[in-house]
Amino acid sequence: MTYTASVVGGSGFTGGELLRILDGHPEFELAQATSRSKENKTIGHSHPNLRHSDLRFSSPSDLESVDVLFAATPHGVSMEQIDAFQEAAGTVVDLSADFRLDSEAQYDEWYDGHSRPELLEQSEYALPELNRDNLAGADLIASGGCNATATILGLLPLFEADILSGDEQVVVDVKVGSSEGGAGGGEASSHPERSGVVRPYAPTGHRHEAEIQQFLGIDVSFTVHAVDMIRGASATCHVFPEGPVSKGDLWGAYRGEYEDEPFVELVAGGGGVYRYPEPKSVAGTNRAEVGFELDPGSKRLVVFSAIDNMMKGSAGQAVHAANIALGIEETAGLEFQGLHPVGAP
Amino acid sequence: MTYTASVVGGSGFTGGELLRILDGHPEFELAQATSRSKENKTIGHSHPNLRHSDLRFSSPSDLESVDVLFAATPHGVSMEQIDAFQEAAGTVVDLSADFRLDSEAQYDEWYDGHSRPELLEQSEYALPELNRDNLAGADLIASGGCNATATILGLLPLFEADILSGDEQVVVDVKVGSSEGGAGGGEASSHPERSGVVRPYAPTGHRHEAEIQQFLGIDVSFTVHAVDMIRGASATCHVFPEGPVSKGDLWGAYRGEYEDEPFVELVAGGGGVYRYPEPKSVAGTNRAEVGFELDPGSKRLVVFSAIDNMMKGSAGQAVHAANIALGIEETAGLEFQGLHPVGAP
Amino acid sequence: MTYTASVVGGSGFTGGELLRILDGHPEFELAQATSRSKENKTIGHSHPNLRHSDLRFSSPSDLESVDVLFAATPHGVSMEQIDAFQEAAGTVVDLSADFRLDSEAQYDEWYDGHSRPELLEQSEYALPELNRDNLAGADLIASGGCNATATILGLLPLFEADILSGDEQVVVDVKVGSSEGGAGGGEASSHPERSGVVRPYAPTGHRHEAEIQQFLGIDVSFTVHAVDMIRGASATCHVFPEGPVSKGDLWGAYRGEYEDEPFVELVAGGGGVYRYPEPKSVAGTNRAEVGFELDPGSKRLVVFSAIDNMMKGSAGQAVHAANIALGIEETAGLEFQGLHPVGAP
Amino acid sequence: MTYTASVVGGSGFTGGELLRILDGHPEFELAQATSRSKENKTIGHSHPNLRHSDLRFSSPSDLESVDVLFAATPHGVSMEQIDAFQEAAGTVVDLSADFRLDSEAQYDEWYDGHSRPELLEQSEYALPELNRDNLAGADLIASGGCNATATILGLLPLFEADILSGDEQVVVDVKVGSSEGGAGGGEASSHPERSGVVRPYAPTGHRHEAEIQQFLGIDVSFTVHAVDMIRGASATCHVFPEGPVSKGDLWGAYRGEYEDEPFVELVAGGGGVYRYPEPKSVAGTNRAEVGFELDPGSKRLVVFSAIDNMMKGSAGQAVHAANIALGIEETAGLEFQGLHPVGAP
Repeated sequence: MTYTASVVGGSGFTGGELLRILDGHPEFELAQATSRSKENKTIGHSHPNLRHSDLRFSSPSDLESVDVLFAATPHGVSMEQIDAFQEAAGTVVDLSADFRLDSEAQYDEWYDGHSRPELLEQSEYALPELNRDNLAGADLIASGGCNATATILGLLPLFEADILSGDEQVVVDVKVGSSEGGAGGGEASSHPERSGVVRPYAPTGHRHEAEIQQFLGIDVSFTVHAVDMIRGASATCHVFPEGPVSKGDLWGAYRGEYEDEPFVELVAGGGGVYRYPEPKSVAGTNRAEVGFELDPGSKRLVVFSAIDNMMKGSAGQAVHAANIALGIEETAGLEFQGLHPVGAP
Repeated sequence: MTYTASVVGGSGFTGGELLRILDGHPEFELAQATSRSKENKTIGHSHPNLRHSDLRFSSPSDLESVDVLFAATPHGVSMEQIDAFQEAAGTVVDLSADFRLDSEAQYDEWYDGHSRPELLEQSEYALPELNRDNLAGADLIASGGCNATATILGLLPLFEADILSGDEQVVVDVKVGSSEGGAGGGEASSHPERSGVVRPYAPTGHRHEAEIQQFLGIDVSFTVHAVDMIRGASATCHVFPEGPVSKGDLWGAYRGEYEDEPFVELVAGGGGVYRYPEPKSVAGTNRAEVGFELDPGSKRLVVFSAIDNMMKGSAGQAVHAANIALGIEETAGLEFQGLHPVGAP
Repeated sequence: MTYTASVVGGSGFTGGELLRILDGHPEFELAQATSRSKENKTIGHSHPNLRHSDLRFSSPSDLESVDVLFAATPHGVSMEQIDAFQEAAGTVVDLSADFRLDSEAQYDEWYDGHSRPELLEQSEYALPELNRDNLAGADLIASGGCNATATILGLLPLFEADILSGDEQVVVDVKVGSSEGGAGGGEASSHPERSGVVRPYAPTGHRHEAEIQQFLGIDVSFTVHAVDMIRGASATCHVFPEGPVSKGDLWGAYRGEYEDEPFVELVAGGGGVYRYPEPKSVAGTNRAEVGFELDPGSKRLVVFSAIDNMMKGSAGQAVHAANIALGIEETAGLEFQGLHPVGAP
Repeated sequence: MTYTASVVGGSGFTGGELLRILDGHPEFELAQATSRSKENKTIGHSHPNLRHSDLRFSSPSDLESVDVLFAATPHGVSMEQIDAFQEAAGTVVDLSADFRLDSEAQYDEWYDGHSRPELLEQSEYALPELNRDNLAGADLIASGGCNATATILGLLPLFEADILSGDEQVVVDVKVGSSEGGAGGGEASSHPERSGVVRPYAPTGHRHEAEIQQFLGIDVSFTVHAVDMIRGASATCHVFPEGPVSKGDLWGAYRGEYEDEPFVELVAGGGGVYRYPEPKSVAGTNRAEVGFELDPGSKRLVVFSAIDNMMKGSAGQAVHAANIALGIEETAGLEFQGLHPVGAP
């Protein structure tokens, strides 16, 4: 069976990734892509990798009826347009933060409030490795944030294996690529100013802390740096467990959690150039790499987690969730394995 | 029907691309990958994008019998090993320069001679847009060189449309990424020395001139620069036709040549950021972008041609040729459309 | 003796380079820096390398009287403000194109005309290696364009030595960094879109052709590519002389022209990583590197010329010219030798 | 008065920086540069920014008598050659780790032991902001390690102001450029493998922990990542003080410590693109940028510290120390203010 799909906000970066994935997806048929600023232009005008397509952006005010609508709009848009979205499609997958948190109070604290708080209970957060069961049949899905996804994937096995309880000290030092700033960009995102940086862009108070708190039940110390890559989010979690932990405990915890996951790969040690998780290794894919190391001189455990922020951290995770919601093969449309060597990437 | 395939020299960059393509190819089954230096290590040890595979490199001296053998070895190896290759496989696709030229004299002039000149007549050069018909059923295929491929694809329509005859002045100024230097690399390829360069690395006398001369019948003025990307070769051809040429003539020539080609896209003008061929737009794909512009103030025609040197310029072209040789759908295994945005790339 | 100096348009990239140079210049005292958009902010707010300074941007409508005024404003501004500039300073050095060409007709052809054509005869073009003698005592100086400077420096010795007469075929293929786009930038200049490119941004018709034509008397075939660096312009000139030329002729021509030049270095062959001119080698300096190679298989001569577009191609050349105009030591303030290794750069 | 100086190990990266600094230093005269691998070649052969110099590398076994000898050799060489160094020069500044630690026991723990432990008491560690007084007149100076320098500069004011005592939890997450790997490089340092990385290269157990422990008296949790830049080390220190700390306390502590330091700049907040310390802002200079932020949602203090690893983290710091040792103006030869914009950098 084939499902029709539309992408609202298709000229942005994550919108383009959705279009790319859906274009090659065996079960979805791309019916519509909207863009207010690029109306009537071909999707290849914005995304040169999609020049083979004849599809043109249409106006977001003329939504077609489809089976699944993916919303790749800036934060705040989906909560305003949700009625139109739900009228157009039985399954709505939102890539913004608008439906990720559970309560209006959280939106008051971390964002600028919420205009449709009654929907927050109905929406399902999409980080399949965390809550796959809730996604089957879901009709309103909030795809997890990129930095939160990297962090949660890194820490989740420690909670499941009771190595962490939530009271511990956890520092999460994140490094991200320039695509997190979105298309267009301003002065700070211009090539001369953004190249070669190690720039503290969210020293404290990054909004993804809210998602981490909600799903892991821990207040992490969270700092985000911009570095010179385009795609990628790498979370280094410095963890101080209460009791002693061995390498064997860790392998047990991580293998137990991720052994059967199609999109998580454990990478910890071994030889060669690529011995730990790196965003380069997963660029363009929906994979996460997760690994760890014990600090012999202290009681610290270092966990590394790397994703492509536009894929496992956004569009890929959204399609993964839609696959689950509709009962499609989970990996459908997400088979790309990545390139080697690859650059920024 | 499924064909078995092997990759000789699988730990290098183009070997890795072959492994990646074959891993996802619907008609090929990857039976063996050899590497002298990485024997017994998993292919993921060299290529982190292939970590999901259990395949381990075996010794190149123990070749299994397969339907197709791809040789991704340094120049000079294939001519020494060709008997073993042909004993192991009915179809041999060589990615080196060892079987690209027609005569021993050319190897004496451009390389260090040839040890098996009697085979030069039997081998077929693989640039399908140039000589697709010769490839069907071929048993020894020499995949075209990256810089030659970019140049030939840019100039071919001008010869077919009699805009060029071979006596004209043609300057080809090529810009290439660091993967052309291969894995390992020395001081000049180290990140501190190689980053941010515009480095004339073959001011004159690049060996790919021989392929261009052989197939287009023209002596081009050829200069290659290293620039800061990893994948990609971009050829800018400055052409001075004898007679007057209009934009209409050019569109006619290029559309006539490439309209039905699955892997060539014409990109010339239009709006947006990506108005001409760029290596970024084709990174990871087997596509070539070709475009042109007329210089109103002179009699010059500028042709731009961009490929991923590891794909259309090497491994992708090799698989494309193998598909044709075996009668498989031409685009099989080569469907990846590329990413946007993408980096170095 | 110390001269007072001001910079109009100090928050842009070339304005920042002027401020940096003047800050360390032994004979100039920086009296004023203007910026319409950054009025009252410290110059370190725009240029983090100048954080040690207390100077704040003032309004361009309140110009102080100084000995030398440097105008680093967009094209078109200087011709409108020239009376105010000349009222404020006895010596005006303009970094835009507004006073580079000799005649109104040229501005009609290449730009949008000229509002003060009567001043074109009075202004002196500043490319000291070309016309040093005219600069002594000059009161209106037009600093040469970056791509024109690289090209003229590469070709000048060939004209002086009668290897070129002006009727030959000359192709100039230029590669430039992102700083040529200026501060701020739009979508095409954003890091995700601009990283890793080889992008034909002026396939034909680049305005610097006019400067080259004016000073060398030759119509070159000129194409400019954007590549992944920040500072730098590299011109590869493919030249087809009428008669035979030997390596000895070339060394004679280039040594004869540049032997005593403090800011030109001949780089042609030798061993090691850096055998030809490269923008990396001159990043941050006022040096040009110039080199060449003969193509044995054709009658081609390849000339390479590399500069830092913001220094020798703009702010450095402007200060060099001011030094000459005022009779100061030519190299004053321009002694920085560059870094190794260095990046994008 | 002018002092003669020599550089042992002049063809490496930090050796090249020493040569550059000494070449422009008003009080030093560069008498000799040695290189075993590049003997008899000009220093410009290795360092293209020094092509103007006629100096050639000589053999390290023929040391001339000079006032100051800078040793830029790999770890382990200086302890073997120290007698020859001290015979050649009254003041020896070693840039390796060979004389940084106080006791043989530390070398047994962190390195491969020490062959001249009796000299450890005589050597002075050179981080002038930490121990300037000890450097005056010193005859054996061990220039501080790059990552240790960044970290110590970030944390020192907290100890001086009793905000930290040494028992607190401190996580130091460091990001470094590729020049830390030194010239030459292997597979992991090659451009295709090293570009665009966020690579955990020292997850735990980095040797610079020993220096931090020795001088600050605290065991930090230390992790180093390779990122895509050439020069630069950025230390993000996540600190958990016992008691409450205000922004005012922090400004007091950092201003108190660094107000009169010529090479430390406080950067914390404000507007514009560059609001916190960044390696780009100090590339090529001997400056450190230090800044901080309080995490309102936790008891965390985040300290950022950025240096050029080859300058403030190596050659610049070495010359700074030599200036102090000899009673020269501290900033002599180290006046370069850096560039804007600048790349990788």
